[in-house]
Amino acid sequence: MPVNLTAPQASALLPVKGVKLGFAEAHVRKPNRKDVLVVTLTEGSHVAGVFTRNQFCAAPVLLCQDFLKQKAGIRALLVNTGCANAGTGDDGLQRAKQSCEALSQLLGLQANQILPFSTGVILEPLPVDKIVAGLPAAIANLKEDNWLNAAEAIMTTDIVAKGTSRQIQLSGKTVTLTGISKGSGMIHPNMATMLGYIATDAAVSQAALESIIRYAVNKSFNCITVDGDTSTNDSLILMATHLAGNTEIAEASPEFAVLRDAFTEVAIELAQAIVRDGEGATKFMTVQVEGGRDEVECRKVAYAIAHSPLIKTAFFASDPNLGRILAAIGYAGVEGLDVNALKLYLGDVLVAEHGGRAQAYQEEQGAAVMKAAEILVRVDLARGNAQSTVWTCDFSYDYVKINADYRS
Amino acid sequence: MPVNLTAPQASALLPVKGVKLGFAEAHVRKPNRKDVLVVTLTEGSHVAGVFTRNQFCAAPVLLCQDFLKQKAGIRALLVNTGCANAGTGDDGLQRAKQSCEALSQLLGLQANQILPFSTGVILEPLPVDKIVAGLPAAIANLKEDNWLNAAEAIMTTDIVAKGTSRQIQLSGKTVTLTGISKGSGMIHPNMATMLGYIATDAAVSQAALESIIRYAVNKSFNCITVDGDTSTNDSLILMATHLAGNTEIAEASPEFAVLRDAFTEVAIELAQAIVRDGEGATKFMTVQVEGGRDEVECRKVAYAIAHSPLIKTAFFASDPNLGRILAAIGYAGVEGLDVNALKLYLGDVLVAEHGGRAQAYQEEQGAAVMKAAEILVRVDLARGNAQSTVWTCDFSYDYVKINADYRS
Repeated sequence: MPVNLTAPQASALLPVKGVKLGFAEAHVRKPNRKDVLVVTLTEGSHVAGVFTRNQFCAAPVLLCQDFLKQKAGIRALLVNTGCANAGTGDDGLQRAKQSCEALSQLLGLQANQILPFSTGVILEPLPVDKIVAGLPAAIANLKEDNWLNAAEAIMTTDIVAKGTSRQIQLSGKTVTLTGISKGSGMIHPNMATMLGYIATDAAVSQAALESIIRYAVNKSFNCITVDGDTSTNDSLILMATHLAGNTEIAEASPEFAVLRDAFTEVAIELAQAIVRDGEGATKFMTVQVEGGRDEVECRKVAYAIAHSPLIKTAFFASDPNLGRILAAIGYAGVEGLDVNALKLYLGDVLVAEHGGRAQAYQEEQGAAVMKAAEILVRVDLARGNAQSTVWTCDFSYDYVKINADYRS
Repeated sequence: MPVNLTAPQASALLPVKGVKLGFAEAHVRKPNRKDVLVVTLTEGSHVAGVFTRNQFCAAPVLLCQDFLKQKAGIRALLVNTGCANAGTGDDGLQRAKQSCEALSQLLGLQANQILPFSTGVILEPLPVDKIVAGLPAAIANLKEDNWLNAAEAIMTTDIVAKGTSRQIQLSGKTVTLTGISKGSGMIHPNMATMLGYIATDAAVSQAALESIIRYAVNKSFNCITVDGDTSTNDSLILMATHLAGNTEIAEASPEFAVLRDAFTEVAIELAQAIVRDGEGATKFMTVQVEGGRDEVECRKVAYAIAHSPLIKTAFFASDPNLGRILAAIGYAGVEGLDVNALKLYLGDVLVAEHGGRAQAYQEEQGAAVMKAAEILVRVDLARGNAQSTVWTCDFSYDYVKINADYRS
C-alpha cells in the first residue's frame, strides 16, 4: 500500500493556461483503462526535457532528443502506457514516428513538434494502430481542467495517481505550476520507467527553463535514481506557456530563484510520490548523508544504503538490524573512510559510533523508530561539509509478487 | 530449495593428511547446533588468505590479515557462527584476540598462530565466554575424518552443507584437496558472509600458494561477488600441509598448473554451491558475457544482469521478460556500446539482435528455456575477444522471508 500517499482531488490540480489534456482508452495492452494521453501547448511555449542515460534507451526517447534539438516549437506530447517501445530497434523508431505523424495531422502540426513517450513492457512492438485509433477520442476531450485524468492515463503498476500544483507571484502576476508523474517503484532504480510532466503559464526564457530543469531534476528525480542505472524510458519534461502575463524570467532575473524553487518543490513532491507508491512499499525511507568531502561521496553512501536488499528487507520487517547499514557504508567505495569517526543515526537515535554500536543505544529505541511508516536514516561521515539525500522504500513480499507477475 | 545441490556424503570428503577438524555446540546464538569449528594444521604448513574489501571489515578479518603478515606459522583456525563480530570497534578486536589466546593456550601455540573467523549478525558483541567454553569439546573431537561435520559447523542460513574433494598426481604421489564453504545467498553480493577453506597435503611454496589463491578466487568466489561490494567477513583460506611426499611445487614448477587448476576447480564448485543454496533460490543462472574489449567491461555487463531484481524476479516466475536484460546491458556502463551490434541468447536461443527482438524468436522458445532449473544467459558484445562469467540465482518470496526474519 502506498505510504502516506493518496490521489489528489481533481480540483487540487490547477489548470495551467495554454495547456490542454485529453485521454483515450486505446486498449494498448489491456481493455478498459486510460492508456493514451495527448497534451497540447499553446504556440510559443517553451519546453525542456531530461532523459534516461541508458544506452538501450527507448525509441521515443531518441525521438524526443532529436525533436527538441530541431527547435521547431514543441506543441504537443503523446504518451502511451502498456508498451515501452524499447529494445525495438529501427522498427521501434519508425512506429514512434508514425504515431507522431498521425497526431500531427489531426492537430495541424509537423511531426517534429510532438514529443512521444512510452512506458510498459520492453522488447515488444508498439501497437501503433491502436494508439492512432485512440487519438480522435483523446483530442475530443482535450481541456485545461483535465490533469487528474491525465495523471491516471499515464499509470502502469502505480496504485495511486500522482499530481500536485503550486501558485506563486511573479512581477505581480499569479503564476500556476501543475505536474504529474508516474513510476511504479524505486526499490532499485532500474525497475520502472519514471515519467514526469510539469507545466507553468509563466513566461520564462528557453535558457532559464533549461537551467531550471537541470537544477530541479538533480534535487528530485535524480535523488531516487542512480546516474547510469536508469530505465530505458525515464523522462522529465518542463513546459512554459507564457500566458500568465509576467515579465519573462531569464537566468539573471531577480525572480529566477522563485520560479526555480517552485518547479523544484513540485518535482520533489512528484519524485517522492513515486517512492511512496513503490512496488510493494510499506515504508518511506529518507537516507541523509552529511559530513562528506563532496556530494558525490555522500551520494555513494546514500545509494549503497538505499539499494541494499538486506537493509530494505530489514525495514520491511521493522527489524533494527543496523549492522547491515554499517556494512553498506563500508562497501560504498568512499576512499580513506574512517569507520571509527562516522556516526549513524536512526531518526534521532545515535546507533553507531567508534566503529561499533553506540554505548547508550538500546535496541528498543531502534525498534520504536523502525515501526513508523516514515523513517530517517542519517549518516555523518565526519570528514567535510557536503551532504546528499536519497529517498527510497522497503522491500516486501509484494515487490516480488508484482515483478514476477507483471506481464501476466 | 537448493538448486541441484545436496550435501556431500561424509565419505566423499577425503581426509587431508595433517589437517584435523573438531566442532562444538557452544550455543553462540542458538542451542543445539554446531557453531564452533577448530581446525589444526601440522607444523610447517603454508597458509594463504584473501579477504573482504569492505572498509567496515570485521575484527577477525583484521586479525587474520595481521597474523598472516607476522609469519609466525599458522597452526589453527577458529570459526564461529551466530555472531559476525563486525561493527564492533576496538572491543570486537579484543574479543577476537581473547578467543585466539584461549585456543592457543589449549593447543600450546601462540595467539598469532591462530586465524579467527566469525559469521552471523553484525553489530553485536562476540560472546567470547561461550566460544571459549566450547573449545575443549571441539578439541576433544579433532580428527582428520571430520570434514562433513566441519562443513555443518560453519553453516548459518545455509540449507545444505557444502564440500568437495579432488585427488591429483604430483611427482608420482597422490595429492588430496578437500574444501568446504558456507554462504547463504548471492542475490546481492553484500548479503551474506562467504567463508571458504581448502586444504591440501601437497608440498607447495608459500609464494606459489599465494599465486594460486589469487588465480583461484578470481575464477570462483569473485565471480559471485562484485569487488568492493562484499560482506564484512568474506574470507577464503588455502592450506598446504606438505605431507603428501611430492616435490615442493613452486611457481616455475612444470606441475604448478596442475595444482593451481585443481584448487580452482574445488573453489568453483564451492562458490557455485553458495549460489545454488542462495537464499530462496529456485533457479541457478550462468551469465556469460563475451565479445568484450576487456574482462572488466564483460564483468560490468554480467553483474548488471546478475544483480537486477527485475531480472531475478522474472526468472523466478519463469517469465521470458528479456527486455529487462537489454535494459541492464544498457545501464551497465560500457562506454561506446553499440546496442545494435550485440546479441543476446537465452540458452541456445537467439533472443535479441539489431537493437531489438530477433526476427525468428518465438516467446515459446524463451519460455521453454526459462522453465529449467539451470539457465544460461549469454551476451555477445561483438566488440572484442574478452569474456567473463558470473553465477547467480533468482529472487523469490522466500528471499524476502529469510531476510526479513533473519534475526528472529
